[in-house]
Amino acid sequence: MEDKVIIFDTTLRDGEQSPGASLNVFEKLEIAKQLEKLNVDVIEAGFPISSPEQFEAVQRIADEVNVTIAALCRAKEKDIKVAFDAIRNSDKPRIHTFSSTSDFHILGKFGDDRYGKTLEEKRKTVLKMSYDSVAYAKTFCNDVEFSAEDAGRTELGYLAEIIETAINAGATTVNIPDTTGYTFPHEYGMIIAELRKRVSNIDKAIISVHCHNDLGLAVANSLVAVENGARQVECTINGIGERAGNASLEEFVMALNTRKDITKNYTNINTREIYNTSKMVSGFTGIIVQPNKAIVGENAFAHESGIHQDGMLKNRNTYEIMTPDSVGVPKTKIVLGRHSGRHGLKARLEELGYNFTEEDLTKIYSKFIDLSDKKKEVFDDDLRALMGDESLVLKEYYHLEYLHVHGGTDTIPTATVKLHVNGSGEIAESATGDGPVDAVFNAIDRALNLDTTIESYHVRSVTSGRNAMGEALLRIRSGQKSFSGRGISTDVVEASAKAYINALNQEYRSKLKKQSEEKIEV
Amino acid sequence: MEDKVIIFDTTLRDGEQSPGASLNVFEKLEIAKQLEKLNVDVIEAGFPISSPEQFEAVQRIADEVNVTIAALCRAKEKDIKVAFDAIRNSDKPRIHTFSSTSDFHILGKFGDDRYGKTLEEKRKTVLKMSYDSVAYAKTFCNDVEFSAEDAGRTELGYLAEIIETAINAGATTVNIPDTTGYTFPHEYGMIIAELRKRVSNIDKAIISVHCHNDLGLAVANSLVAVENGARQVECTINGIGERAGNASLEEFVMALNTRKDITKNYTNINTREIYNTSKMVSGFTGIIVQPNKAIVGENAFAHESGIHQDGMLKNRNTYEIMTPDSVGVPKTKIVLGRHSGRHGLKARLEELGYNFTEEDLTKIYSKFIDLSDKKKEVFDDDLRALMGDESLVLKEYYHLEYLHVHGGTDTIPTATVKLHVNGSGEIAESATGDGPVDAVFNAIDRALNLDTTIESYHVRSVTSGRNAMGEALLRIRSGQKSFSGRGISTDVVEASAKAYINALNQEYRSKLKKQSEEKIEV
Repeated sequence: MEDKVIIFDTTLRDGEQSPGASLNVFEKLEIAKQLEKLNVDVIEAGFPISSPEQFEAVQRIADEVNVTIAALCRAKEKDIKVAFDAIRNSDKPRIHTFSSTSDFHILGKFGDDRYGKTLEEKRKTVLKMSYDSVAYAKTFCNDVEFSAEDAGRTELGYLAEIIETAINAGATTVNIPDTTGYTFPHEYGMIIAELRKRVSNIDKAIISVHCHNDLGLAVANSLVAVENGARQVECTINGIGERAGNASLEEFVMALNTRKDITKNYTNINTREIYNTSKMVSGFTGIIVQPNKAIVGENAFAHESGIHQDGMLKNRNTYEIMTPDSVGVPKTKIVLGRHSGRHGLKARLEELGYNFTEEDLTKIYSKFIDLSDKKKEVFDDDLRALMGDESLVLKEYYHLEYLHVHGGTDTIPTATVKLHVNGSGEIAESATGDGPVDAVFNAIDRALNLDTTIESYHVRSVTSGRNAMGEALLRIRSGQKSFSGRGISTDVVEASAKAYINALNQEYRSKLKKQSEEKIEV
Repeated sequence: MEDKVIIFDTTLRDGEQSPGASLNVFEKLEIAKQLEKLNVDVIEAGFPISSPEQFEAVQRIADEVNVTIAALCRAKEKDIKVAFDAIRNSDKPRIHTFSSTSDFHILGKFGDDRYGKTLEEKRKTVLKMSYDSVAYAKTFCNDVEFSAEDAGRTELGYLAEIIETAINAGATTVNIPDTTGYTFPHEYGMIIAELRKRVSNIDKAIISVHCHNDLGLAVANSLVAVENGARQVECTINGIGERAGNASLEEFVMALNTRKDITKNYTNINTREIYNTSKMVSGFTGIIVQPNKAIVGENAFAHESGIHQDGMLKNRNTYEIMTPDSVGVPKTKIVLGRHSGRHGLKARLEELGYNFTEEDLTKIYSKFIDLSDKKKEVFDDDLRALMGDESLVLKEYYHLEYLHVHGGTDTIPTATVKLHVNGSGEIAESATGDGPVDAVFNAIDRALNLDTTIESYHVRSVTSGRNAMGEALLRIRSGQKSFSGRGISTDVVEASAKAYINALNQEYRSKLKKQSEEKIEV
C-alpha cells in the first residue's frame, strides 16, 4: 500500500463554519493560494449552493489555484450540479457529496415518513440516495468523494454496506468522518481496519478520515486511522471548524514528520510554510490561536521558563523535538519602515504569502505609509493586520471620514464622528458613552439613525510592543442574520469604529445580494 | 485493579511555567480553592525552592486547602527539605521529586565528569541520586512521588530499573512523564504496559502519567496510558503549561465521562465546576482560551453555523455528545447591577468560585459600584475581570490618580496623567504618542523618569457587548527580569495605563524582596 497520506484541507469549508469566521472572496483566495504553497493535495473550497458568495469563492479558487479543488454538496441533484458548476474550470475538480449514516442522524434528519416508516426503511432510502448521488456526480467528473456523516457513531455493518455502495457507484474516495468527535483512538482505528476487511471493493477507493476535536482526540484519531490504512486526512489550519474544530493540519503533519522513526507514512506538505499559513488564517478569520497551541502557538517553542532557570538547558534536544525553523518560525523579525519603499513592501508581502495586483498594491502601499508615519517599525504581524483590512479590496458604502474622542478617569467619554455615506454625502454627529468605544458606537448610531444590537465585541492587539496595532472584531445582529466587522489601527478606539462601520457595510452588501440569491436558492 | 483515576492538577506548577503566566499568592490560593471545589485529588502547588513567593504560595495552599498538596523538588536534600517545609501543615502532604532519565537529559544536565565519565557511569549516578532522594523524602512524609523526567524518550530497560529503585526507596507514586510530548499513543501505552511487566514491585505504587502536547497528543496519550494501567493523570486547566502545555484536565475528564460505554475508568471530578475553573484560570494567568478549544472554548457548544442552516437540526443528539450543562456552562447570564447590593454581589462571587474576607469584600464592592455606574449590566465575566484586579489585594507603590486622553483621526494623541507615588506625593505629566496608549505610556515614563522596555502588550475584551470590559496585559523588562502587569476598565486606554502601573509595582515589590530571598537561596 502507498505510504503517502493525502492532505485534504477544509479550512475554507469546515473551518469557515466556525462561528464568527466569515471570510470574503478575496480572503478565501489568498488562503487558497497560501495552501497551494503549503503543498496540500486537496483544497475543499466551500459549499457552493449555500450562498452566491460561497459559489463565487469556490469558482475563483477553481480558476486560479492549481491543486485538486473539492466542492461540497448534499446528496441532491441540484446541489451536485451547482457544486460542479463552481469547479468546472479546475484542472482537478472533485465533487464531495455526503449522506448521514448514523441512526442519530437518520432519525434526526429523515424523520419524515416519506423517507420510510421504520429505521430499516429509512436506512434503505439513505443507501439509495447515496448510490444515486455518487452516480450522478460521476456524470460530471471522475473524482468523486463520498462521506458517511457521523460514521463514528454509525453501526459498523450498515457503514460497510453504504461504503461498498458508494464505491460501486463510482466514489474514488470514501470518507469516514467522526463528525461529533466521539470516538477513542483504538475504537476509530478498529472502524477503519474493519471496513478494510468487510468492504469487498475497498481497494478501489482511498479511505479518508475527518476527525473532530470535541474530546481533544482529533489528531490522535487521524494518526491511528492512518496506521490502519486510511490514506487521506481531512484537516484545517489551526484546527478551526465546527464547535471544537477539526484535526489540526500542522499537528498531524508534524507528528508524522517528527516520528519518521516509527511511521512509514508521510505527507508532501512544505512544513516551512506552516507558520505563515497559520498567521494568515488567524488574521483573516479573526479566530485567535492560544499561546499553548501545539506547533503554532506563541509559546510552542518557548523553552526558557520556570524550572530551567538554573541553566541546565545546555542542549536544545533536551526539551525540543522539532525546530522552530522546520515550521517556518522566522529567526529574526524583519522590520520595514517608511524607507522600505514600495518594492520592499511588495517583496516582504510576497514572502509572507500574500498575492495582489499592482492596483491593490497601490492601496496597500498608501495604508503602509500611513502606518509607518505612526509606527517607526513595521513588523510582519503589522503587515498581516494591514492585509486583513477589508476596505483595501471592497468598496465601502459607509466610510469613516473623521473621528475625535476624549476620555479619562474624571471625564464623560465623548466621541465625534464624520461619516461619508454613499449617495447622501457626509454626516457628523457626537455622543457620550460608558467608555470611549461606547461613545463612538453611540455617535455612529446617531449619525445613521440606527439602533443596532452588538452581539459580541472583542479587541486584541495583533502585534506586540507599545505601538501595537489593535484589531477590533465585532458581530452585529440584524433580524435573523449576524454580520461580522473587523477594524485595525494603532488606536484601539479607531479600530473599534472601523470594525463597526465594516459590519454595517457587510449588512448593506448582504441586502444588495438578496435578489441574485433567489436564482440559485435550494 | 482499582478503576478510579487520580487527578493530579499541576496548573499551579507546570501551568504557571507558561511564559507570561505569573500568578501572585492571592491568585494561586483562589485557584487552589476552586480546584478543591472541582474535586481534584492532588494539587501540585508549586516548586518551593525556586523563590520565596513560590514557597509562600505553596505554604498558604497547604494551610488552607484540604486535598493532597504536592510540592516539587529536584533530587537534592536542600530542595526536598524546603519542599516539605512548605507543605508540613497540610493534612495530606506529598513530596514530588524527580531525576532526568533519558540519555538526552542525562548527557545534557550531567555532562560534568563528577557525575561519571561514561554514559553508563552517569546513569548509575542518577540511579543512586533517585534512590537517595526518595529515601530522604520518606523521612519527612509517607506520600512520595518520583518522576523519571523525559521517560518518553528513556531506554525502557533503564527506565524499569530506575522505577523499581524508586519504589524500593519508598515511592508511593511513580510518574512516567512524556516531558517533550514526543510519544505516539500506542507507543506510550506500550511503555506503561511494559513497566507493569518488568518492574517487580510495581504493585506497591500508583503509576502516574504526565503528558505534554507538543504534537497534539497529550490527552490521547493519557487515555491510552490509563487503559494500560496508569491510575494517576497529571494535567492542567485549559491545558496550559511549558511550551504547548500539558494534557488538558477538562478534555481528559470529559472523554472518560462521555465514553462510559467503553471505559470502566472514572474520576471523581465535579464536572459542573469545569467552566468556572477554566474562566478563573484564564482570567488570572492572562492565557486566553481559543474559541475552538475542546470543552471550554467559546464555540465548543456552538452548533448553529453553516451547514445546518436548512433547519435539519431537530435533535441536540445529532451533533452533541455532551451537554453544556454537564461542564457548568450557565444557561442564562445572571446580571447584576447597582441595585444588587453587597449581599447579591457576595453570593454571586461565591457561586463563581471566589473566596474573600469581609475586608476584601468592602474593596471589591466599592469597585463593583464604580463599574455598575459605568455599565448598567454587570455580567459574570465582568466580575471575573474585577477579581483579577491586583490592586484589590496588593498595596500599590505607584497609583494612577487621574488620566485624560484625547485622540482621533486628525489629532496628535495626547495623554495627561497624575500619579501618586508612595512617599513622594503626586506627579502630573503629559505626553504625545503614536496612539492614545503610547501617549499614556510616554506620560507615565516622563512622570517617573523611566525608559522602560515593553516586551509585549496585549489587549482583549473580557466581556462582550458594546460596554465590554477591556483587559490590558503587558510585560516590561528590567535588567535580567521581566514583570507582567494587568489592568481592567471599560476604557481600554485606562486599562492599559493600569497594566503599566501594575507592572511597575511588581518590579518595585521584587526589589523589596531581594533581601529575604537570600535566606533560602539554593
